[in-house]
Amino acid sequence: MNSNSSKLLSQAVDAFASLPGIGKKTALRLVLHLLNQENYYTERMSEALVNMRNNIKRCSKCNNISDEEVCAICTNAARSNGVLCIVESIRDVIAIEDTQQFNGRYHVLGGLISPLEGVGPDQLNLQSLKERIEKDDIREIIMALNPTIDGDTTIFYLSRLLRDLPVKISLISRGVSFGGELEYTDELTLGRSILARVPYATPE
Amino acid sequence: MNSNSSKLLSQAVDAFASLPGIGKKTALRLVLHLLNQENYYTERMSEALVNMRNNIKRCSKCNNISDEEVCAICTNAARSNGVLCIVESIRDVIAIEDTQQFNGRYHVLGGLISPLEGVGPDQLNLQSLKERIEKDDIREIIMALNPTIDGDTTIFYLSRLLRDLPVKISLISRGVSFGGELEYTDELTLGRSILARVPYATPE
Repeated sequence: MNSNSSKLLSQAVDAFASLPGIGKKTALRLVLHLLNQENYYTERMSEALVNMRNNIKRCSKCNNISDEEVCAICTNAARSNGVLCIVESIRDVIAIEDTQQFNGRYHVLGGLISPLEGVGPDQLNLQSLKERIEKDDIREIIMALNPTIDGDTTIFYLSRLLRDLPVKISLISRGVSFGGELEYTDELTLGRSILARVPYATPE
Repeated sequence: MNSNSSKLLSQAVDAFASLPGIGKKTALRLVLHLLNQENYYTERMSEALVNMRNNIKRCSKCNNISDEEVCAICTNAARSNGVLCIVESIRDVIAIEDTQQFNGRYHVLGGLISPLEGVGPDQLNLQSLKERIEKDDIREIIMALNPTIDGDTTIFYLSRLLRDLPVKISLISRGVSFGGELEYTDELTLGRSILARVPYATPE
């Protein structure tokens, strides 16, 4: 963008280009798209973004994002099935919801314990966890944390924290991706998937 | 995005996803980025977009985008060198400005003549062109239009329109891209680049 260009345009391009993964060229393309649309299109878009940013809350029960004090998942009585899924972030809630395979509730930690990055248990959303497990009559806790050192550290910490409670703790399974090719699977995953092999039940 | 999710979030995701080349997944990533930033970041970004869309003008001389009644290129006395570059759109102005190889002024048509799409000369910004050429003492006109049928049709129309004026008309050169490989150049371009070969001057 040359100095002869419009300042208004440059500022709009810079705004888009400040987003992750959006370079100057893409930002320019987006801005020129806005210029080709009616004014209200840009206004409506900006309004949706500001409205979202200013009014979105964290659910007081599970720490998921929410439009209300308590999120739609926590208020949904059909999801009170005694299973609680512990995740790192709202991204993970969205990813798991998209699978449509989980019908319980979540607990969003807001991070993982990371000695290297100086993140300790105090910085995670753990204060209400024990109380919640007792009050909501949770029978099973699924640890759906990233299969990394930080994830494993957090799982270990939580398993110690909760060991006196009458809950079953399970982990999401780890192994070769569905539809993936063994040849291109990393050694660690492939090696572990052999160690963690499961019995095959012949379909009748 | 599941129906259990936040409506505020969905609306923001939809806003981003309505932009060209941005899918739902990318839109979600952008929205989550906004959520990780302070509120004023989103406000400033939205402001830049709305401000640009509502206040940007078309230059009354050349039809380029402009913050003022007349654009910075038309008011820059150093660019009054008698050369006028005719382009289809503001995108082309930006692309040519980025090359830093042109020091004259522009005339933005706002389209190309296209019999197939029903675009005639009346829909282009041509009313002021003849008058401008005389008044600004233009000696040369560079046609920097896309090398397509519509581009060539427009060049032909303009050359007829301007044939009584004492201006030289030139076209930007067409041929093999710099740094490109002949093997991967399309047949038409390669064939034409042979027909339109230029004499080689041995450097001394």
